[in-house]
Amino acid sequence: MAGLTSSDLRDLLSFTTALARKAGAVILEGSRAIQSASASDIGEKKNSVDLVTEYDVKVEELVKREIKDAYPEFQFIGEESYSAGSRAPLTDAPTFCVDPIDGTTNFVHAFPFACISIGLIDQRRPVLGVIYNPFLDHLYTGVSGQGSFLSRSGGPPERLPLGGPARPLPALSQALVAIEWGSDRKAPAITQKADSFTRLAGDPAGGVAGGRMAHSLRSLGSAALNFAMVAQGGLDMYWEIGCWPWDVCAGIVIAQEAGGFVTGSKDAPHDGNVTEAILTGRKYLVVRGIAGSEGETSLAAQQRIAREFYDTVEDVPLDG
Amino acid sequence: MAGLTSSDLRDLLSFTTALARKAGAVILEGSRAIQSASASDIGEKKNSVDLVTEYDVKVEELVKREIKDAYPEFQFIGEESYSAGSRAPLTDAPTFCVDPIDGTTNFVHAFPFACISIGLIDQRRPVLGVIYNPFLDHLYTGVSGQGSFLSRSGGPPERLPLGGPARPLPALSQALVAIEWGSDRKAPAITQKADSFTRLAGDPAGGVAGGRMAHSLRSLGSAALNFAMVAQGGLDMYWEIGCWPWDVCAGIVIAQEAGGFVTGSKDAPHDGNVTEAILTGRKYLVVRGIAGSEGETSLAAQQRIAREFYDTVEDVPLDG
Repeated sequence: MAGLTSSDLRDLLSFTTALARKAGAVILEGSRAIQSASASDIGEKKNSVDLVTEYDVKVEELVKREIKDAYPEFQFIGEESYSAGSRAPLTDAPTFCVDPIDGTTNFVHAFPFACISIGLIDQRRPVLGVIYNPFLDHLYTGVSGQGSFLSRSGGPPERLPLGGPARPLPALSQALVAIEWGSDRKAPAITQKADSFTRLAGDPAGGVAGGRMAHSLRSLGSAALNFAMVAQGGLDMYWEIGCWPWDVCAGIVIAQEAGGFVTGSKDAPHDGNVTEAILTGRKYLVVRGIAGSEGETSLAAQQRIAREFYDTVEDVPLDG
Repeated sequence: MAGLTSSDLRDLLSFTTALARKAGAVILEGSRAIQSASASDIGEKKNSVDLVTEYDVKVEELVKREIKDAYPEFQFIGEESYSAGSRAPLTDAPTFCVDPIDGTTNFVHAFPFACISIGLIDQRRPVLGVIYNPFLDHLYTGVSGQGSFLSRSGGPPERLPLGGPARPLPALSQALVAIEWGSDRKAPAITQKADSFTRLAGDPAGGVAGGRMAHSLRSLGSAALNFAMVAQGGLDMYWEIGCWPWDVCAGIVIAQEAGGFVTGSKDAPHDGNVTEAILTGRKYLVVRGIAGSEGETSLAAQQRIAREFYDTVEDVPLDG
């Protein structure tokens, strides 16, 4: 199989965008159901986790069904296929890589940063991504070689990054960095994360050894939307430990098409290529496009920032 | 002076809302100016801080001018009056308490969580609040005794909290908590914060002593918008050390009118009254309205959560 053409990808983008909006409506319906169920549920202790699972499954089934009808020969990777233990190896075939609800904790709490994330892998590389946050009506799209875009509140697609050409980023000390506390809260992972965050934010002149005094740290609670926000230019970088390919697949394409740099752990190749090992490695670093100074390319500037970053944080272990 | 009437407050709300939208347009203009200046500024090292200050002053002047025209006898408290060293004591007179741009780091980076925050104090108590985030077109309003509301993207005002009556909150372990890294990055303040965050998030069964395993931690980078998000019901609580009355004055009214509980440091009275000492104390805790179980009032449930919270975190010192 020779891989998808640009024309195939354009058709797939229309299909995927419509599907994401349809899924978004179900996510909103689920959020309302959870709010009213938990408000009426005093004393009954019914777990809202059940409703989350119900809507997670509902959205995934919708997505799988529509994909099967339109693209029956395509493969599918999602949480379900992994957790069932059948970790089918990635093939060269077109493969949808989907998180039906990314940011489920936000979804439960009606913190308006939950989304559906639909990525498409072809020839083992992410080539198309659509992320839709129905709470804010923000739709992000990206297609390999065709740029990435944001449509806000039904408005026209605006090319990413917003605000025109890439800005400089002289050092980590100038950066707004997204970090997440994640789901592995055991020691030593959580303390290594906290120590890393403290060094990122801390003032070296104020007694924090190795402190970088980043502009600040932000946590939105959705890997897909963090990638999208880096693509948009609202965050300079985002670091994540422990999430999965379906959380980041769409975001990778959207970030790369906005000039962003994506890599894996400290020891991964930092050449800007998202290999299968990086895609499935569960450690991610993404840096926005940078206007380098004095002839420095954007890639060289991004690699410089990535090096400074990985010299600062600890290599937090995965929970397995 | 007998204080403002309900009718006065309704007029003031119209005035303040229109003013906030006008200020929001200037904030957006400033954000665009900063993005294009920094993109075209390679090698010149012109500091975007200058542009931030320029727009901060521009918005504050607009607000002061319009207030002076409409309410010449009202007092005004803002960063400028404090930093000039003339910390005029609060009087019984109506006093606007304004942050022209809350979330300036976000503003610089075009992370879409910056806002104007206009509070009004009367008889030494916050009585009216308007918070407008022009990046998302989210307008929050609250008036003492008249409820609080959110208008999204020009839509009609929706009563807060969104999604109907208050939900239960059995324990911190069920909470989505907003925390901020703040501007004081020196040891020991930053390490005490990080230790507190680690205990909030950490798993006591996974080796984190005193861990509460909160659902998760979020950081948006704007005190006013964190208060607004608690009022909305998207966050269960928000803890802040080191911000100022103008950052929180509007948010206090909006949160309280949505059923929220606001207090100061661990040692402040936790009776739900925002005294002058709490308003100016620079340490804040806000908890959303809670449906108590088995006859527990919302206030009692909020006090229970506040106690659990303050038993978990450290009493981080102010930088003075």
